[in-house]
Amino acid sequence: MLTISNRGKQMPPSPIRKLVPYAEAARKKGIKVYHLNIGQPDIETPPAILDAVSHAGIKVLEYSHSAGNESYRRKLVQYYKKAGIDVTYDQILITTGGSEAILFGFFTCLNPGDEVIIPEPFYANYNGFACAAGVNVVPITSRIETGFALPPIADFEKVITNKTKAIIICSPNNPTGYLYSLEEMEALKEICIRHNLYLFSDEAYREFCYPPVGGHSPTIGGHSPTIGGHSPTIGGHSPTIGGQGTGKHVSAMHLQGLDQHVVLMDTISKRYSACGARIGALVTKNKSVYDAAMKFAQARLSPPGLAQILGEAAIDLPDNYFDAPKAEYLRRRNLLVSRLNAMPGVFCPNPGGAFYAIARLPIDDSDKFCQWLLEDFSYNDQTVMLAPATGFYGTAGLGKNEVRLAYVLNLNAINAAMDCLEKALEVYPGKVKIEVTATAMAE
Amino acid sequence: MLTISNRGKQMPPSPIRKLVPYAEAARKKGIKVYHLNIGQPDIETPPAILDAVSHAGIKVLEYSHSAGNESYRRKLVQYYKKAGIDVTYDQILITTGGSEAILFGFFTCLNPGDEVIIPEPFYANYNGFACAAGVNVVPITSRIETGFALPPIADFEKVITNKTKAIIICSPNNPTGYLYSLEEMEALKEICIRHNLYLFSDEAYREFCYPPVGGHSPTIGGHSPTIGGHSPTIGGHSPTIGGQGTGKHVSAMHLQGLDQHVVLMDTISKRYSACGARIGALVTKNKSVYDAAMKFAQARLSPPGLAQILGEAAIDLPDNYFDAPKAEYLRRRNLLVSRLNAMPGVFCPNPGGAFYAIARLPIDDSDKFCQWLLEDFSYNDQTVMLAPATGFYGTAGLGKNEVRLAYVLNLNAINAAMDCLEKALEVYPGKVKIEVTATAMAE
Repeated sequence: MLTISNRGKQMPPSPIRKLVPYAEAARKKGIKVYHLNIGQPDIETPPAILDAVSHAGIKVLEYSHSAGNESYRRKLVQYYKKAGIDVTYDQILITTGGSEAILFGFFTCLNPGDEVIIPEPFYANYNGFACAAGVNVVPITSRIETGFALPPIADFEKVITNKTKAIIICSPNNPTGYLYSLEEMEALKEICIRHNLYLFSDEAYREFCYPPVGGHSPTIGGHSPTIGGHSPTIGGHSPTIGGQGTGKHVSAMHLQGLDQHVVLMDTISKRYSACGARIGALVTKNKSVYDAAMKFAQARLSPPGLAQILGEAAIDLPDNYFDAPKAEYLRRRNLLVSRLNAMPGVFCPNPGGAFYAIARLPIDDSDKFCQWLLEDFSYNDQTVMLAPATGFYGTAGLGKNEVRLAYVLNLNAINAAMDCLEKALEVYPGKVKIEVTATAMAE
Repeated sequence: MLTISNRGKQMPPSPIRKLVPYAEAARKKGIKVYHLNIGQPDIETPPAILDAVSHAGIKVLEYSHSAGNESYRRKLVQYYKKAGIDVTYDQILITTGGSEAILFGFFTCLNPGDEVIIPEPFYANYNGFACAAGVNVVPITSRIETGFALPPIADFEKVITNKTKAIIICSPNNPTGYLYSLEEMEALKEICIRHNLYLFSDEAYREFCYPPVGGHSPTIGGHSPTIGGHSPTIGGHSPTIGGQGTGKHVSAMHLQGLDQHVVLMDTISKRYSACGARIGALVTKNKSVYDAAMKFAQARLSPPGLAQILGEAAIDLPDNYFDAPKAEYLRRRNLLVSRLNAMPGVFCPNPGGAFYAIARLPIDDSDKFCQWLLEDFSYNDQTVMLAPATGFYGTAGLGKNEVRLAYVLNLNAINAAMDCLEKALEVYPGKVKIEVTATAMAE
């Protein structure tokens, strides 16, 4: 008998994409589906960077250097400098999306059977790469009551074993939107140094950090929702947003004395709304890690050539390029979060960055609910596709009444999607009354 | 202490690229280096397929389907049909270069510790992907005396264990240029069925198969080298070119009754001289393999978006597109092989496809020799970069007097490179007299 490998069997299907057939079926029935399930922004890719590819005058589309074009890496040095990150071009390895940076990090730093600690909920594909690399993910739980702040240091130390080799963080976070504060980053540094751990830092959303709630409350479509006004009280204490209220990104590379530990995992996917480019980077000052990662890079020859041109051109975008998308995401966040928190029984902490939010809904089972939204529900021939949060937790049973929403659609679409969700929650047969108490939240 | 993983340490550096610093140093000394060391063709990428990217009218460069754009996969069905391969679009998974198809094949079909048999010399990066996946490569030796024909079935059966899960072949072959005959492919089929093995078939060079020697002896630069005339006699018997003299490609997918066993690994890199595109495909009729590979594909989200447009446009190139590059490669092969075999003590079997040849040189150590060519030798301020064949053998000690040459440069450059090699062999301090007897050859 021909057999599939164990890792092939154990490999988790994408929790984000597994509902796709139901969405396709809904569309075939004539129902418009609002896709808040996937981090695919609708923001236009800057035409200038697409034009750069057209005007590159390519005669032969050759392999690039395995670490990526040197010209691109040298330009990225400037980009990182502006982000307060001081690296040289030979500390940057261009990868095929952030995905490959994660895979190379696992391959390079961890043996099969080694453990990586990840605060949950976390980007579901870390599971996939861990499975591919034979690495065990050890989740520690961050909680919706605290807006998904870093779990206490004690929670880390409880699960550290002699197999633990690394911690992965993502800030601003996918799927929670949480932005780690300097204090939280310093706490991580202490753990990494004390226990000799790598810090894998996924900073895909670096540019998208938002000012404190109420600080710059934007006007949306003529009515100005004050998030502060809707901020629900959970179990008697209003959710602490950690240090994320600063709107300032703290990179793992800002931390003094952690150079040998930090492996930065980066991507241009969200930064320039160029998800399909598949250009990322692994950045590290640890020369042994870089050199080993480089061997994996050599095996696959080179990162995508056309998209490297696009990535390089992006460095020349004017400094104010991010102002518009960031303002747009902020308006969307404010609308989304205020709409959610206005729904009975719904709670959504205010995310400090990225373009995701996790909301707790008064439902029995987020997987069932998200499928039901596509299969059995519509409102004015429209429905909404959400990602069940179960796929973002490593601990079985968590996330059953939470969903992730990506605010990657325009304000009108978000409003329409929220209308659908509001109506859906009124009629969903698996509706449950969530006791909003600290006990219920910790369930 | 922070440590590098075992696979990170064991990962082989690219044998093709490890001499790059010496080539850079030579260039800095003002020496022109002819690069016959790497399979990077100088053939122009068809402008029409680059234009297709420019004219795609992309607004948002989005993630594609994880298996690649459906429109592209549907077009590939037509491409494969013309190659006598009957597949449906949902049996095609677009990958990031052929590299990722190989990696997905390993991940999906083999457990860590499982074994894959590969006739050596073989594409060196199979080692890298095997190391990444924890898979053990078991080489069986094909020999230069037979032009690198498939080793006898007995050699396979000698090394098959209960850990053996797959055989990898590459036809036409990188690095030997050997083209497997129908008989050899049928022999492989028998082994795979008898022992329940996957057949991973790397068909990157499918289009580049050449007519029998002497069949269409092309005229080169005014003088017409007849390869037959230079065909050296080795140990008393002229080298058998297996069935490769037919000039016909036999795909693993042409074999009846092997559908569940075959995983085709494909790429557009060489086909359209688009190495930097990083677009390949994993093709299989085994639904379990496809579905499991798809999970690895989902984890990395999607293959490169811009280059998929290029790949799709390539299917619309006129049917005679391949005539010109194929004729050009054939002229180059004929020139290269005749120049090599005219050098004292040099033997190069005539490759039936791809654009590589392996030559045996009267040298002590191919690694030393290739480095010496770059560090210590020049002829009219020129030298040649070759790939030591040692990097293509799994068995230690083999390939020490063999080099791989990629005929990816034009005829003038090949002539100049051969002039350099000829002069180099006259003065190389590590020159040895190779006894051209069957015993010596089998050493």
